[in-house]
Amino acid sequence: MKVALLGYGTVGSGVVEVINSNSDSIEKRAGKPIEIKYVLDLRDFPNDPVNELIVHDINVILEDDEVEIVAEAMGGINPAYKFAKSCLENGKSYVTSNKELVALHGAELLEIARKNNVNFLFEASVGGGIPIIRPLNQSITADEIYEITGILNGTTNYILSKMKDEGRSFDDVLKEAQDLGYAEKNPAADVEGYDACRKIAILASLAFGEHVNFEDIPTEGITKITKEDMIYAEKMNCVIKLLGTCQKQDENVFARVSPMLISKTHPLAMVNDVFNAILVKGNMVGDLMFYGKGAGKLPTASAVVADIVDAAKHSGTNIMTIWNREKVELKARGDVRVGYFVRVAKVDEGIKSRIEEIFGEVREVEAINNEYAFITRVMKEKHFEQKLEALREIEVLSKIRVQE
Amino acid sequence: MKVALLGYGTVGSGVVEVINSNSDSIEKRAGKPIEIKYVLDLRDFPNDPVNELIVHDINVILEDDEVEIVAEAMGGINPAYKFAKSCLENGKSYVTSNKELVALHGAELLEIARKNNVNFLFEASVGGGIPIIRPLNQSITADEIYEITGILNGTTNYILSKMKDEGRSFDDVLKEAQDLGYAEKNPAADVEGYDACRKIAILASLAFGEHVNFEDIPTEGITKITKEDMIYAEKMNCVIKLLGTCQKQDENVFARVSPMLISKTHPLAMVNDVFNAILVKGNMVGDLMFYGKGAGKLPTASAVVADIVDAAKHSGTNIMTIWNREKVELKARGDVRVGYFVRVAKVDEGIKSRIEEIFGEVREVEAINNEYAFITRVMKEKHFEQKLEALREIEVLSKIRVQE
Repeated sequence: MKVALLGYGTVGSGVVEVINSNSDSIEKRAGKPIEIKYVLDLRDFPNDPVNELIVHDINVILEDDEVEIVAEAMGGINPAYKFAKSCLENGKSYVTSNKELVALHGAELLEIARKNNVNFLFEASVGGGIPIIRPLNQSITADEIYEITGILNGTTNYILSKMKDEGRSFDDVLKEAQDLGYAEKNPAADVEGYDACRKIAILASLAFGEHVNFEDIPTEGITKITKEDMIYAEKMNCVIKLLGTCQKQDENVFARVSPMLISKTHPLAMVNDVFNAILVKGNMVGDLMFYGKGAGKLPTASAVVADIVDAAKHSGTNIMTIWNREKVELKARGDVRVGYFVRVAKVDEGIKSRIEEIFGEVREVEAINNEYAFITRVMKEKHFEQKLEALREIEVLSKIRVQE
Repeated sequence: MKVALLGYGTVGSGVVEVINSNSDSIEKRAGKPIEIKYVLDLRDFPNDPVNELIVHDINVILEDDEVEIVAEAMGGINPAYKFAKSCLENGKSYVTSNKELVALHGAELLEIARKNNVNFLFEASVGGGIPIIRPLNQSITADEIYEITGILNGTTNYILSKMKDEGRSFDDVLKEAQDLGYAEKNPAADVEGYDACRKIAILASLAFGEHVNFEDIPTEGITKITKEDMIYAEKMNCVIKLLGTCQKQDENVFARVSPMLISKTHPLAMVNDVFNAILVKGNMVGDLMFYGKGAGKLPTASAVVADIVDAAKHSGTNIMTIWNREKVELKARGDVRVGYFVRVAKVDEGIKSRIEEIFGEVREVEAINNEYAFITRVMKEKHFEQKLEALREIEVLSKIRVQE
């Protein structure tokens, strides 16, 4: 089975390494040998044996009927989207780790794959090496999934873990993560939650079978989380995690990416450092969790190669994936119900009654630094915001949603 | 797609409930409606609508060509083994939650299924509702798996969790679990580790592709674990879990079921109550963990129905499962290397030097009740036993393996 690889960066070179390291067991699993025939990259790699496979023109691959599977690890929409369409229309299966591409064009590319009796597979686009896309499609088939909540970004989970364990500030840990190469020079995609947003959009689309547009998902990152927030979290026997979530209640679907306070007894609370985990709730099976390395060269490449194996096994057959192009109307952000942890500057001793006048009964949290801190009852986001607005004489130091 | 169900006990009635509750989404996933045509049971159920489907003779099912899938939830080897063979030989796929059957005859039944171009599926036989069999077969295909370690029995995990949290004795918690229906009147299959042994044998066979005989796996249960052991575990920042494990080092495979001391930071340490979790280590992907409800009517039935859906989707095609009949020669029990936590009665102040004389350097653990407690370095089991034998003047109160 001849494969073309698009992109010879971190993940792409990992794909070559995985196929070379485990060629015997991969051949057994796929039922035939897997061989990389071309590697498309703008660059040459004169000191790497891969150099003899390098091509610079996608048409070499498109026009070679021997290539049945194309694996892409370039990222970004252009030219990946054009490449994906052309490959599928030319009867080649397309395997990708590219979450932007999948989140934006997944439904359409799945449809094109179906029409051409080939496969569009994207296990590596969410959760790195964690098997989650295939289990959602092929294992959790007896259940109606009503919630998926996950730690979907390794960089932010690393930063939050360090802030918690070492009592350091966001900026300080971010800088270290950048120096170590764990975070990008421009860290916005991670720390603003954009990466997690695309991933939860993909999971939500698969869970509910219809297209969840990532641009519709309210998304907050972790840049406002402080050392002090971590101290409060510890006092409440909680941890702060950046969670992507999608939930279905009755026929209403909502989705969100934001930092959340979760109890230390929550299964996601023990997921530290660069590990990711995805909690799936089904109406029959209850809670399931999938845990593993959410990023990194070899874990991500392992998922890409697992998709290559699956594409090889299903040569000539389309694997059913339910994600149609009809768009899910998400519940308006303001109508979603949630409780908040709030820290305010303590202006005077009357602050508690002032807050309870507006918020009704609140759960007071033992405060530090002449602050007042409390947890609201669960209410609609828009009502929370109105109440906070009514308190405008008081300086709000922090507000973080609380997972009930 | 017509299905026959064998056994209308807890799991069997769960299968009916899952199919009835989620019929629309199941039809969508399977690509066709799933209908139960017969339920085989010795009993009648006059007040249950299922009664009109009840048959008492397997031949009714075997001779009905309309039945393409048989789902078994009876347990035990007889008559399940005979039924499974007959169904597969008659061109029907066979889906089962029966771990005894799978552990003993899995390789043979897979071969018969292959020859008859049908499927033998057993997702529900390990980990209840947790997707683990299908991910091992179809997702973790780019990796060489070198270890699987899991909490595979919900009853013992519930007992250990209660002993830890409430400081109670094994007998006390077992009795409560029996009164609540969480443990059987004859609890040996759970508390002696026999159930976990069959499950790790199944996982090991799938991980290594050859038959691991459950009778070859050294198996210890939790009956000797005491309240005092739990106190020591807490002092060492560890928990005690009943773990099934199989590991491959070079070409040597070993497997074991036993209580283990694991650090609270270990991913399996947070798995409490009736939850199960399975840690899989691959040479590319690193650590993966699968977590969920390991038992119970609906979670287990959810996995059975997921197999029915998979069998329906693969009507006329055999799904490749690598588990051949060649038997894996397990490493001799005495040659496996492990460290032990040991508690002994403190005869006098010279005990430490006496122990170090025999064991070499040990890690002393702060003791309670006039005891002496220590952790040995890692050594072969047979050497540990020889050393303990040499200490025979000292009363050994407890010995528990330590996960490094």
